[in-house]
Amino acid sequence: MPGPIQSIERAAAILRLLARGSGRLGLADIAAGLGLAKGTAHGLLRTLQGVGFVHQDPVSGQYSLGDALSHLGPGYLDANDLRSRASNWADALAARSGEAVRLGVPDGGSVLVVHHVFRPDDTQQSLDVGSSQPLHATALGKVLLAFDADLAQTVLSGAPEPYTRRTLTTGAALSGALARIREADWAAEVEEFVPGEAGVAAPIRSFGGLVVGAIGITGAVDRLCDTRGRPRPALVQSVRDAALAVSRDLETDR
Amino acid sequence: MPGPIQSIERAAAILRLLARGSGRLGLADIAAGLGLAKGTAHGLLRTLQGVGFVHQDPVSGQYSLGDALSHLGPGYLDANDLRSRASNWADALAARSGEAVRLGVPDGGSVLVVHHVFRPDDTQQSLDVGSSQPLHATALGKVLLAFDADLAQTVLSGAPEPYTRRTLTTGAALSGALARIREADWAAEVEEFVPGEAGVAAPIRSFGGLVVGAIGITGAVDRLCDTRGRPRPALVQSVRDAALAVSRDLETDR
Repeated sequence: MPGPIQSIERAAAILRLLARGSGRLGLADIAAGLGLAKGTAHGLLRTLQGVGFVHQDPVSGQYSLGDALSHLGPGYLDANDLRSRASNWADALAARSGEAVRLGVPDGGSVLVVHHVFRPDDTQQSLDVGSSQPLHATALGKVLLAFDADLAQTVLSGAPEPYTRRTLTTGAALSGALARIREADWAAEVEEFVPGEAGVAAPIRSFGGLVVGAIGITGAVDRLCDTRGRPRPALVQSVRDAALAVSRDLETDR
Repeated sequence: MPGPIQSIERAAAILRLLARGSGRLGLADIAAGLGLAKGTAHGLLRTLQGVGFVHQDPVSGQYSLGDALSHLGPGYLDANDLRSRASNWADALAARSGEAVRLGVPDGGSVLVVHHVFRPDDTQQSLDVGSSQPLHATALGKVLLAFDADLAQTVLSGAPEPYTRRTLTTGAALSGALARIREADWAAEVEEFVPGEAGVAAPIRSFGGLVVGAIGITGAVDRLCDTRGRPRPALVQSVRDAALAVSRDLETDR
């Protein structure tokens, strides 16, 4: 059995060190306290800063424990954060796919729509930012369920509502679908929520592969799917590319 | 500039995942949630468990956030912990060195003696477990100061008491001594606290190199030091060996 992972132990030691005394230490003091080279300590601190566990004072340069550590939240992005970081990519996805784009995060037992880009045509459409969608019957929701076993358990232990005759409502059907979504890293929904409509979505990831939201398109089945009723590969690729682009931006922006 | 450290990002992602929903997840769910192989997730979880950030239920095998994360303490060992883990090594050190052995942790602005083994001779000695010693004038204390910049700052900003004419009381003298202690990884004190007595101590380390206490010997200068007034190398080695042995036990016991 392999031993403990040294960089994690060192990261934990830094957090303990910062929890002592005044809670503010410079790079040299942290390195000296743990017997590390300054470069090694700096790499650890930059990573800890990236995940929100450590804060660096911009003036003094000193490090202290980050807010994320004392209020360790679920890590889902809030509406404003996700919208501001993803909006350019959402616009591009709508233009490329010709379909409406939505971004969602879990909120209680539903998907909260935090951003919505209209289908780029001249039809009348209504903004549904702030509205809720069912987790088990939408592509956005199934992505969120697939990577959150606890949320999936909550939905499965309830009685998932049959919106159409295609909605997955049994534990077996839903579990199987979620496993395939994890494998494929994207989700589709064909007339499972609204007759005549389909959706494709993919996960937005933060550090360490943590799924923090989902981005997807919805539209008429005959536009989104091929003649065998399967999502068109080019559209799937566009959705996945957009999700990856947002994920990359989350990595570099923080 | 090198990128963030992947294992730390993954560890942080696991903590976020466990902060969601019910807060209890099995290995397979954690691996699936982050898109990791089970073996990889297991290595991360075992390390997180080792540093106290994750707890595994012995019955269900499920993981949840550990107490150490919500109450991120300074990581110094409490008296009972350190005593129980170090007592065999302290006995051995007393037998090998022929001197009295003490273990100390910082407590406010002093060293708290948490364990004391009498000098193995027939003299009358009194147990001083629970007593305090000055940080700046004892070998135990100087070890603790050397690896805790914040504690050192507190002592230096006060007016360190001159117990003897050899006690280090100026910032320059003390800072220089602490730097040499960090370099050597052990500390000595010769008549800095009590005339005619000397001490040698070394750091006890937990995961990531975090100094969690100190172990050392004290005794008459003519027994501890050579003719030039320097601690005898064999005694220094014995103290360092004992400190390493306790540190190794801390690593494996947890």
